[in-house]
Order: sequence, then C-alpha cells, then structure tokens
Amino acid sequence: MKKLVVIGGVAAGGSFAARARRLSEAAEITVIERGPDVSFANCGLPYYIGGEIPQREALAVQTPQSLKGLLNLQVRVRTEAVAIDPAGRRVKVRNLGDGSEEWLAYDALMLAPGAVPVRPPLPGIDGENIFCLRNLQDMDRIKSAAASSASAVVIGAGFIGLEMAEQLHRLGLRVSIVELQEQVLPQLDREMSALMESELKDNGIELILGDGIASFTPKGSATSCQLNSGRKLDADLVVLSIGVRPDTGLAKEAGLELGPRGHIHVDEWQRTSVEGIYAAGDAVETADRLGASPAAVPLGGPANRQGRVAADHIFLGARAKPYPGSLGTAIVRVFNVAAGLTGWTERRLRQAARPHRVTLVNDNHHAGYFPGAKPMALKVLWDPEDGRVLGAQATGFKGIDKRLDVLATAIVGKLTIDDLCHLELSYAPPFGSAKDIVNLAGFAATNARDGLVENVHQLPDDPQVQLIDVRLKPVVQAHPLKGAVNIPFPMLRSSLDKLDRNRPVVTVCTFGKMSYFAARILLQNGFDAKSYSGGIRGSIDPRSPAKLATS
Amino acid sequence: MKKLVVIGGVAAGGSFAARARRLSEAAEITVIERGPDVSFANCGLPYYIGGEIPQREALAVQTPQSLKGLLNLQVRVRTEAVAIDPAGRRVKVRNLGDGSEEWLAYDALMLAPGAVPVRPPLPGIDGENIFCLRNLQDMDRIKSAAASSASAVVIGAGFIGLEMAEQLHRLGLRVSIVELQEQVLPQLDREMSALMESELKDNGIELILGDGIASFTPKGSATSCQLNSGRKLDADLVVLSIGVRPDTGLAKEAGLELGPRGHIHVDEWQRTSVEGIYAAGDAVETADRLGASPAAVPLGGPANRQGRVAADHIFLGARAKPYPGSLGTAIVRVFNVAAGLTGWTERRLRQAARPHRVTLVNDNHHAGYFPGAKPMALKVLWDPEDGRVLGAQATGFKGIDKRLDVLATAIVGKLTIDDLCHLELSYAPPFGSAKDIVNLAGFAATNARDGLVENVHQLPDDPQVQLIDVRLKPVVQAHPLKGAVNIPFPMLRSSLDKLDRNRPVVTVCTFGKMSYFAARILLQNGFDAKSYSGGIRGSIDPRSPAKLATS
Repeated sequence: MKKLVVIGGVAAGGSFAARARRLSEAAEITVIERGPDVSFANCGLPYYIGGEIPQREALAVQTPQSLKGLLNLQVRVRTEAVAIDPAGRRVKVRNLGDGSEEWLAYDALMLAPGAVPVRPPLPGIDGENIFCLRNLQDMDRIKSAAASSASAVVIGAGFIGLEMAEQLHRLGLRVSIVELQEQVLPQLDREMSALMESELKDNGIELILGDGIASFTPKGSATSCQLNSGRKLDADLVVLSIGVRPDTGLAKEAGLELGPRGHIHVDEWQRTSVEGIYAAGDAVETADRLGASPAAVPLGGPANRQGRVAADHIFLGARAKPYPGSLGTAIVRVFNVAAGLTGWTERRLRQAARPHRVTLVNDNHHAGYFPGAKPMALKVLWDPEDGRVLGAQATGFKGIDKRLDVLATAIVGKLTIDDLCHLELSYAPPFGSAKDIVNLAGFAATNARDGLVENVHQLPDDPQVQLIDVRLKPVVQAHPLKGAVNIPFPMLRSSLDKLDRNRPVVTVCTFGKMSYFAARILLQNGFDAKSYSGGIRGSIDPRSPAKLATS
Repeated sequence: MKKLVVIGGVAAGGSFAARARRLSEAAEITVIERGPDVSFANCGLPYYIGGEIPQREALAVQTPQSLKGLLNLQVRVRTEAVAIDPAGRRVKVRNLGDGSEEWLAYDALMLAPGAVPVRPPLPGIDGENIFCLRNLQDMDRIKSAAASSASAVVIGAGFIGLEMAEQLHRLGLRVSIVELQEQVLPQLDREMSALMESELKDNGIELILGDGIASFTPKGSATSCQLNSGRKLDADLVVLSIGVRPDTGLAKEAGLELGPRGHIHVDEWQRTSVEGIYAAGDAVETADRLGASPAAVPLGGPANRQGRVAADHIFLGARAKPYPGSLGTAIVRVFNVAAGLTGWTERRLRQAARPHRVTLVNDNHHAGYFPGAKPMALKVLWDPEDGRVLGAQATGFKGIDKRLDVLATAIVGKLTIDDLCHLELSYAPPFGSAKDIVNLAGFAATNARDGLVENVHQLPDDPQVQLIDVRLKPVVQAHPLKGAVNIPFPMLRSSLDKLDRNRPVVTVCTFGKMSYFAARILLQNGFDAKSYSGGIRGSIDPRSPAKLATS
C-alpha cells in the first residue's frame, strides 16, 4: 500500500490524485488544499465575474465529499502544508481553522502549489479596491466590488487582463487597460496584436500602452492610479494582472532545486531533486518541446498531464511514458476576436539568436463564397535549415483555435513547411477552404525558401526603391498608401515600361498575395523585385475582408 | 518557352495553370473547358440551390476575361478535347459552338477532366425531373425545378446527398432520402452516423435506409420512384447522388494506364504512363498516405495540390516536391450537426484485414462549465503494433472540423496514441478543455493498450455476464437499460459484495468514462471486468450532454 500526499488540489494535484486512484484502489491518497475549494475551474473565474458564466456552482467542479465518493480521496481544505521533512518522508500540515498541526507520512509527495499573482511592492498597493484574481474568493470579492463600481483599471494586457477587461465592460464599467509594453498581448509578436487592439477600442475600452503603474492613492471611495508617465487614472476598481510567480516557498525550504525564476525543477517523470517528491503544474519548469532550456507554462493543460505522468511513474512501471515537454499553446477570446500562439514567437527566436524565417499570410476562415467568411492572419516561424515549424500565431474572428491546434500538432510531429502545403484538412464550405490558410502558409514559406520570391517585412524607407501598389483603384482610394505608385495588378504586365529597371521594386497589396504575384512577374522580367509580406491590411484595417482576387 | 494545354478548368486544372504562370511568365498556357464556366466553386452548388449562398456570382470565381488579366491564360470554354496524339504531342479540340476542330500542340498536357455523377441505366432514369449535380448548369436546373416542387427524393445519403437534402428542405420541400446502406454517410462507421440520422429526422426528413432505387415512372408532372423493396415514393424532384466516376474516356483512348475503377494512374509527380501528359484531380488515383494501394479522393483540396505539384515538376527542377498522397479527410454539415473522417475507417481496416484497435470517446466540445458546451464523439483507429493513428471520425455540433484537422495532422506526423495524450491544444473556456477530447482519446487508447482496461464494443448477450450500469438513478430512470443491474458509481466500492466474483462483469454508463472507472475498481478487487466502450449515449440519445461527473 502506498501513502500519497498531494499538496494543492486544483489542476495538477487533482489530476495526479485521480490518476493515482485509477491505478491503485489500495493507495491512501490525501489532498491538502489551503483554500476552501478543491478542483475548481480556474479558467472560468473572469467569466463568472462578468456573468457570462451565470452559475457559480458551475465552477466548483468537485467538493471533498464528491471526491470521496468518486475517488475515495481524503481531501483536507483550509489546510496548509507548512514544512516538508524529506528524510523522514513526512509533511507537516496546519488546520487553518483551529491552528492545529500534525505530520502526515508519505511514500510519495506531489507538490502542486500553483502560482500566485505578481503583486509588486508599490505605494498604496494594499488599497481595498485593488485586486488580483487567483481563486474563487478573489472572484467573489471582485464581483462584489464591481457591482458598486462605475470604472475599472486593469493593469496588464496579457490573456487574463484582457479577459477581465472584457468581463468588467460586460457589467457596464468604464474600463482602461494599462500595459508596460507598446502592445496588448505582449506574449505575441507586435503585428499579431493589432486586430485585438482594434477590437478593444471598438468596444470602448481605453488602451494605455507603453506605460506602467507607479503607485496607488485612495481618492474617496475610488483609487487614483499614478502611471510612470505621470498620468493619473481614477477608478472604482483596480485589477492587477501582470503575471504570476511560482508559489514555491515551501519547496525551497525543503531544499528542492529551483530554476532561475523560482520554479521547481523536475525531470521527465515530474520528479524533483529530492527523492520521493514529485511536482507538477504552474510551480514547475519542464522541458521545452522546441528548445534546450526549460519551459514554465502556467496553464491547465500541461498541469493536468504532468500530474498524470507523475502518477503513472509511481504505479505503471515500464508502461509509464515521460512528459514530452511543453509548447506554450495559448489562446484568448475578447469580444469577437481571438488571438493565440503555439511554440516560439519571432521575438523569442530573435532574443535567443536562433535562426528562423517568418511567413505571414491572410485569408478567410472558410470559403469566401460562403456567407460569414471572416478574415484571419496566420504567422508561421520556421527553421531555415530544415524547414521545421518553430512556432505559429493566429488572430481573427473564427477558426483561430483550429489553426493553432493544427500547428501545435504539426510541431509535435516535427512537420516542415513542405508538410504544411500538403495537410489535408477537412473542407466543406461552412468549415474551411480547399486551400486552407495553413496550406497557404506552407505555399508562401516554401516559395520564399525556394527563391521564388524575396519578402520584405517592413515597407521600404529608401527613395531609390519603387514602391508599387498593385491594389485595385477603389481599394487604393479608400485606403491610400503614401509614397506608392498604384498599378492595379491586371495592368501590370502591360505597364512594365513605366517602371525603372535600374531601381529596386517592392510590391505591395492588401494581403501579400497579389504583391507576390506581381513580384513574380517583375522578377521574370528582369526587375529586382521583392514583395511586402502579409500586405498592409494589418496597419490600415486589420478587419479587411480577405477577398484575394481583387486585393 | 513551354506550350501547356490544360483540359478541365476547375480545381486541379485551374491550380495547375495558376501555379505554372507564377513559375513562368513565358509559358503559353491554354485551358480547355467543355462547360461554359471555368474555375467555379464546385462545393458551393448545393448551398446556392437552397439559398444559403444568395448570390450566384459568388460561385463563378473566375471568368476567361479575369483569368486573362490575372494569369494571362488563354481560356476556351464550350470547347471539348476530343482526341490526344501523345506521339505528336498534340490534342484535338472541338468548339462546341460551331463544331469546328483543330489540333493544339503542347509540350506538356494536364488532364483534369474531373468526375461525373454515376447515373445507372435504370428504367425511367432519363425523366425530366431526375437530376444530378455536377456544374452550374445542373445547379440552375435543379434550383428552377425546386421552385415549382413540393417534394423531393434524394437517392444516396453520402456527403452531397445530405447537403442536397438539407438545402431542398430549406426551400420548403418535403424531402426523403433513399440509401442502399443501413446508415446515412456510409463513408463513416455505423455508430458515427447516429447523430446525423437523429438530426435529419428531427428536421422532418424521411430516411429510407437499406433500400435502393429500382426504376422511375412519370406520374403526372411528378416522378414515381420504385425501390428495391417494392415501396413507391412520389416526388416532384429527384436528385441522384450515388457517387461519381472518373471522366477518363479520353485518357483511355489515348492509351493512358488506368486503375481498376477507371482512374488515371499517376506517379508522385502527377505524371501519367505517357510522357508529357500529367493528370490531377477527381480523375486520378494517387498514393494513399496510410496504405500501399492507390487512393482516389474526389475532393477539392487534393485536386488543387496535385495541380500545383505537376506545375512544380515542370518548372521547379530539383526544388519540386512530390505529392505525398491523400488521406481522404472529409466533413459535412447538415442542419446543426457535423460529421467527418480522416484516414481509414474501422470498416475499411476490417475489410483489408489490417490490424487495428478502436477507441471511442465522448466529451463536450469546450469546457462544460462554459455556456454552450455541446456533446461530441470521437473515434480513433490505431495500430496495435506501434500505436500509430490510422484514422479518425468525429460527429457533433461544434468543433468537429478542428478535431478532424488535428487528427489529420497527427497522421501526417506519424503520431501515436501516446502523442495524442500530450498534444498541447489551445485552451480557453470558449474554445476547448484543459483535457481536450483528442487528449481523452489518447488516454483511453493508451489505457486499453497498457492493459488497464479491457473494452467491449457491444453489449453482452450472455446471461452469465453481469451487466453493471453505474449511471446515477435519475439518468437510469430516464433511459433504462434492459438486463442491467444499476449500481450508481459512488456506491460501487461499498457494493462489491452484491456481485458474483465468479461471473464476468461488463460495466456500462452514458459515455464510457465512468464505466472505465468502475472496471478499474472491479479489476483491482479481483473481478473479471470489462468496460463498454463509448457508453450507451449513441444508441439511446446521441445528443446527451457530456456532463461526465454524473454519468
């Protein structure tokens, strides 16, 4: 019989305990949870605040009683693990109700303490209207405060910050977002956040980018937020959403090896540096599917699967399979726009000085001739050596999750840009296109690799360059492009004599497709021609419908 | 300079011509099309008939004039290729307007004649109200006939047949579907069509399964359809949708090697057996990604990419990449239900006597706690040797295309059931679950492989077997299961003494998850226990919401 103690009863700890029970009816499994709730739906918290999830019960997935019935677990809520004795294989727990303490013996210990919101020691940060969102209690407090608030400031424009902004807006609050970076969703490359910024502004949310929070001051029943720029913002409610840090104080005291940012270091079986102690979830760093250095991905999917791997290692013997590493796939929906990523971004590749090439394509999410087609943009990063996909980002209105999932699967399968050309994705007019945008990304990337076209990723700032805009006249009239000569694509072949063969040409269109066609014509006619990748859609109007033939 | 002649100007021919032009401004490219339209949106035809696509122009993607402007193609519509002289590298074409004929010389010929609907020589089949749907003219005729019809019979319940049935119903016609097989969507395994059958019936469409058409008789302005069973059905309008055959008469006369079902045999560069002649699209058979024998997949995606491969082979030299073969990914939406497949089905694996195992899982399409979660079913076929995915089928209301695309990508990446466990798919509550149904399929499959559970795929018909229904009492009362003993899951551990340890047990629940949990408990307590895979949801109520904890 095995005695298992699990510290933390949400995603990683819950999955570990459930899998362990499946594998061993005989094990004694005790789950220690500091909060009053176990196994709640973390990712749903913002949606209950805004009322999009109407029932609070929907989030309380399990109770100690239900887990006893389903899994024969001993769950102790409002109980904190305060010390680990690795040599004695025991953990000291404190009942937060009566303060009593006791030692629990274990054969194996699972540490799944999760992460806590970053709360920098700024002046005034302990004000009563300043909240972080981690658990059901935080959620209840924010929901209650929002009910009597007219305005909110959300600090941090990452995934959770944007979800919070949307949900507070849904309650009728005036919402401002403050973000230190010059873009929302700083996890994404800059150009992939443009549509989301447009969507937030369209919905009346104020964006304050490139500015950070300096201090807070009470102002009547509200809070005055002083920004680094000197600007002041008053709000009835402030939500801090500037990231999380692993909750690994106990692990550190117990002598577990931690990574540079405080995460518990684990091997491919989720074993920590101390025998008998496993760890999983937001508190750990694991292998990165795409890199040599460890990855810390504080998301529910990896947490659940890591917990499962640890239980398998304890009970499954040779049949257990190691954790293969994380990709960091993530997505967010705000109003009608979705954006997300998988694998590495261009920024990260550049910072790591890792060789890469960039392909950006635009298309509709399903056949353009079928009603309801919505534009989307897909960016793929790939290895110039072998063509392997290193990362992808997508943004648009519909079908973003699907393309990210295809690319995430492609990375796991070590697929190349050639493989993307030939993915045979499900097609009927309501679902996709005979050439899906993922195929188009493969076409564009292989065209670049094979030297059929040279792309530029910025509009030229050189008077020597002839910037040729091949969009049709009505499109150009609606969205003129400064410094460009307009030669509508169908006129190009008969207009070659108007161009100077001794000056380089950059072709440009809405989406980057017609400009590629134009560059092909010019190259074959002896011009030094390059195509502006992805078109000017992103900078002019990220919502432009992707009707390619006339762009 | 290369002279290219393209026979057939829709998907494969159009893609070939477009890619060829991109690669060579100097080529002379002539496209021969028998019909009056070139490059039209084939897959949209049913939707224009029903009015879901309101604008006919949306389907006429290109015209000869627009293709001249965009691609400098010579397009000859209403022109038929009537003979090929491979030795002389020329093709004889007939102008269907004036009957004049001429020989066109080519350096390379692309045959993309497509497929024609099967129209068996049944008595009365040439009746004026009996239609097939292949092109814009057929579409116009059916739409016109439907306008004065009150009832329709669709013969054939494949993808196009169901789309036609839905669209005719949308116009207010009474619609019956006649299908020779005992299921709709005979491309799928039987149990994966149950939800679609329920959806068709719910919408008032009559299903006549296991019956075929014998003959037609005019009856006033209507048509009487005599079925093999003797049954008679009257309808104002009949649509035949019983499959397609490759339109390869010309290819045969030219001496090209054909496959057993009349498809043009091509190599990985789309080269036919005759030098200088390429072929692509519905008329050819190519490699199968998963098998040794050739595959013929009459769909737009493969057609487009095959056309592109042929052009690359002509112009790209060593940079060209071969066609990697087809998977047969396909999907259909009818009313609110989607169903589709990728790779091989169980039926096909069984017919080929190819070793395989079956995993069937049920879940919601996104987090159950987020409003709007809809049930879906996913079936995965895998190789018992190495765990590689051999095929998948999915059906449900939302997110079906996404899961098929992930599985299609997984097959290309040669992923195994272990890899499915660890796919890191994009998760936020509106999009998925921390454990996506694709992960669940991996969990269920590896559990079966690792001997944690033995699944049965049919309910036992042996009085010796104890059939234990672990659903909760209210669920059992709503949907009782004959011959089963109900022990609600939370009571199971305390009820083991009620069971006979000397008799085998099969556990059953709604979705196959709790029955797996129950089988684990029983196995570890010394019982010979198996779990009924996928639960009884499919046979009782394929729409049951997948609230797993209480199933």
